[in-house]
This record gives sequence, structure tokens and C-alpha cells, in this order.
Amino acid sequence: MQRALELAQMSADEGEVPVGCVIVRGSEIVGEGRNRRETKRNALCHAEIEAINNACSALGGWRLWECEMFVTLEPCPMCAGAVINSRIKKVTFGAYDKKAGSFGSIADFNSIAYNHHCEIKGGVLEEECKEMLSSFFKALRESKNKQAD
Amino acid sequence: MQRALELAQMSADEGEVPVGCVIVRGSEIVGEGRNRRETKRNALCHAEIEAINNACSALGGWRLWECEMFVTLEPCPMCAGAVINSRIKKVTFGAYDKKAGSFGSIADFNSIAYNHHCEIKGGVLEEECKEMLSSFFKALRESKNKQAD
Repeated sequence: MQRALELAQMSADEGEVPVGCVIVRGSEIVGEGRNRRETKRNALCHAEIEAINNACSALGGWRLWECEMFVTLEPCPMCAGAVINSRIKKVTFGAYDKKAGSFGSIADFNSIAYNHHCEIKGGVLEEECKEMLSSFFKALRESKNKQAD
Repeated sequence: MQRALELAQMSADEGEVPVGCVIVRGSEIVGEGRNRRETKRNALCHAEIEAINNACSALGGWRLWECEMFVTLEPCPMCAGAVINSRIKKVTFGAYDKKAGSFGSIADFNSIAYNHHCEIKGGVLEEECKEMLSSFFKALRESKNKQAD
């Protein structure tokens, strides 16, 4: 999760909502990603999607049965769906997302009869992950207020 | 939807589960996609994701407010989530998907408090879309049986 936080910081430095994601198989990192929605001007460019894309490339297949995901923010429906489609076995996330979180907050995909369910652990390094998001949005508000002055 | 069916047929010809997708703005096609999960060995390579990716590139932004999607099969959770994230205003689909369909069949994302909801019309050219899927799976079973003989 420390590496996911580093990736989230890279997002923040690029003016993106800070979210970072790492996929591991055993002790090996097989995919990394960070949020780049604004930079890439693309709704698909969430951290988890980039990490899954990289992991599928690295492992040469679409089934990530043996892999675990570490992500700083609870996955949205698109990313939670991508976790299901790629058969990831466990997701550990930091901050809960009350607006879009789909592994417990606003919906729980594990309670829907999809053809794959995964183990979920939320709230790991929660304070650090939340603080990074809060700082980003605070700075964004201050910057907008300055522009409005 | 006819163009989406053509794209689905291209998937089938490539040995993929036949699903095709078109995104339009007004009368203009701004994104197309077909299922390529096996060919690309990537869990993300659903028709809708490819079409959204192309539409974001074509229009230069991640918000597809003015766009409508036509897809031969009801979107799975990943693709339904991508529709929410890209703010597509209407989805028209052909066949219902009892295993993963997330706009009414196994879940209905419009009944969850996500920050975007879209108009849904299911069952358009349903028989043609279902028939293409049934034929594909029938041929796949026959080919497997032959191999087992």
C-alpha cells in the first residue's frame, strides 16, 4: 500500500485526484497504475484500470486468479467490475468512497450474484489515503477561490 | 444497432464472444468497439470499453454527456460503471444478460445512488443479438465435442 500511496502522490503532482494502485502476484509487483483521467481526457483512466491493463500484459492473459490489488481508494463500479472480470482474488483498499465505492460503501458487488467474488479488506492506511485526498481537494478549492478573487 | 451487430459478427469471426458497440453523438458515430478479450488477452477488452475509449479520443474529453451507446448485449458491471463514469446519456442494448447484465438483469445500477444515471432501452433487435450469441456458443460446443472425440 505504501507503493500505491507513492503512485497516488504522482497523480496529485499531475493535478489529478490522487489514487494509486498496485497489483501483486506473491511478492512480485505485476501491475501499477495511477489516476490520469484529466491528463488523458479519458473516463477509463482510473488507477485500477491502468494496473489491470499492465498486469494482463505482464502475465499474458486476462485471468488474474493469483493476484491481489492494493488501491488507495475504494473502487468505483467500473473498477470493481474490472476486478470481477479479471478474477482478482483479493482487494485491499485505503479510504472508503461514500460517493461511488462499490465494495461496501454505496454498493457491495460481493452481495450481487456475479460469477466471481473476491476477498475485501478496507481501511488499510486509511488516514494516510484520506489525508492525501483531503489535501488535494483543499488545495483545489483554494486555487479556485484565488482565481475568483 | 445494425452497425453494432456487424461489429459483433467481426468478434465472432475472430473466435470471440460476439458483442459489438457503437457510440453516437447526434447522427455521427464517434466510437466503435468489439469484444477482443481472448485476442488481446486482456480482461478490459470488452466492446463498450473500446468504444468509450475511442469516443473520448475522438471528442477530446472524458465527459460523453451528449452521447448514446448502442450495444448488442446488456453491459456487465465494468462496462455499466464505465457508462456512469463517462456520463453517457442513453444506452440501448439488444440481448439481456442473465449472468452479468447490470442495467436490469442481475443488478440495476440506475437504482443505486451513483452520481450519474442514464436512460436505458433493452431488447432492441433482441432476437438477432441473441441468435448471434447462441450460434457462437453452439459452434464452440460442437468444436469442443469434436476435439474430445
